[in-house]
Amino acid sequence: MAEYIESLQRLAEQFGRLQGIGKKNAMKMAFSVLDMTDEDAAAFAQAIIEAKEKIHLCPICQNLTDRDICPICDDETRDRKTVCIVSDARVVISMEKVREYKGLYHVLHGVISPMNGTTPDKLKIKELLERINEGEIEEAIVATNPTVEGEATAMYISRLLKNFDIKVTRLAYGVPMGSDLEYADEVTLYRALEGRRDL
Amino acid sequence: MAEYIESLQRLAEQFGRLQGIGKKNAMKMAFSVLDMTDEDAAAFAQAIIEAKEKIHLCPICQNLTDRDICPICDDETRDRKTVCIVSDARVVISMEKVREYKGLYHVLHGVISPMNGTTPDKLKIKELLERINEGEIEEAIVATNPTVEGEATAMYISRLLKNFDIKVTRLAYGVPMGSDLEYADEVTLYRALEGRRDL
Repeated sequence: MAEYIESLQRLAEQFGRLQGIGKKNAMKMAFSVLDMTDEDAAAFAQAIIEAKEKIHLCPICQNLTDRDICPICDDETRDRKTVCIVSDARVVISMEKVREYKGLYHVLHGVISPMNGTTPDKLKIKELLERINEGEIEEAIVATNPTVEGEATAMYISRLLKNFDIKVTRLAYGVPMGSDLEYADEVTLYRALEGRRDL
Repeated sequence: MAEYIESLQRLAEQFGRLQGIGKKNAMKMAFSVLDMTDEDAAAFAQAIIEAKEKIHLCPICQNLTDRDICPICDDETRDRKTVCIVSDARVVISMEKVREYKGLYHVLHGVISPMNGTTPDKLKIKELLERINEGEIEEAIVATNPTVEGEATAMYISRLLKNFDIKVTRLAYGVPMGSDLEYADEVTLYRALEGRRDL
């Protein structure tokens, strides 16, 4: 496909390496770049370089940031007694969109998955324990995904946190808003029943 | 969304400018870049710059190429008496995948569309006439899309080509292979009936 325009092919391959992008879409995107002005294409390339250069981990919460300390950790108005433990930076963005949570975060950068070689020491668990050891945190909300690996990670962390005098909670399980109970899977329905609340 | 990581946000915006990429996917792609090694990200940026720098129009067929003359025009084994007129370079790629067509191409870079300000003088029609005027071409296959604008463009070109002593043909209309007649639209079915052939 387009083998005869080498630089186009190369660009399409680059797009194809991005998560979730198939061959056809990659080629579409490469053509999009050709439709750009020279300045726009240069700005695009620059944005890639800059993002890689500037973005690093916040030394406190391990979230991605392009400042010394991320704006969340740096925000004095936030509740510094609560920390929400998430598997990766994407979840922080989702949580922030809710605009309800006012505490801090801790990004693990993965979940325990022996199959994929992700052992606990590869996650930012040591950094979490150090933070909690400082004594300011009173509640840790474990917000890993409700999957086998996410659950295992949550269990592992909650056991470690038992050594500290803090409250450890987990996000509620249940049926998602707007969903159709007819199509809900058994495990979710079971969890929703189990966690039922008074009206 | 991710406003607090400016360079990530900027990169996501750049991805969002590509054809057919929504906000969510753009952010996914920006995160993918962060997961790359520094070298890979640099190669990605370089591929964008290079594609824009190197790719230009072939002076003969107006197709995209990164050589002086595109490999198709330059290929002495191809049938130089037939030219297939297409709206853009993507169609050349599709046609080449068929591996049946051995003639040359001519890329118009658009179709006539007064609504979008694309008048005939904005297309590579002058270049087409010049090529045909040279006398080597014996058949022109008009392969614009079977849409209102594609049809109008085909009509316009076929009228211009009447002035030359060459055969002018159009791709066959009909039901696509593997499709279900139950769901075929009336116009397609009508065209398929009209163009029926002896078995």
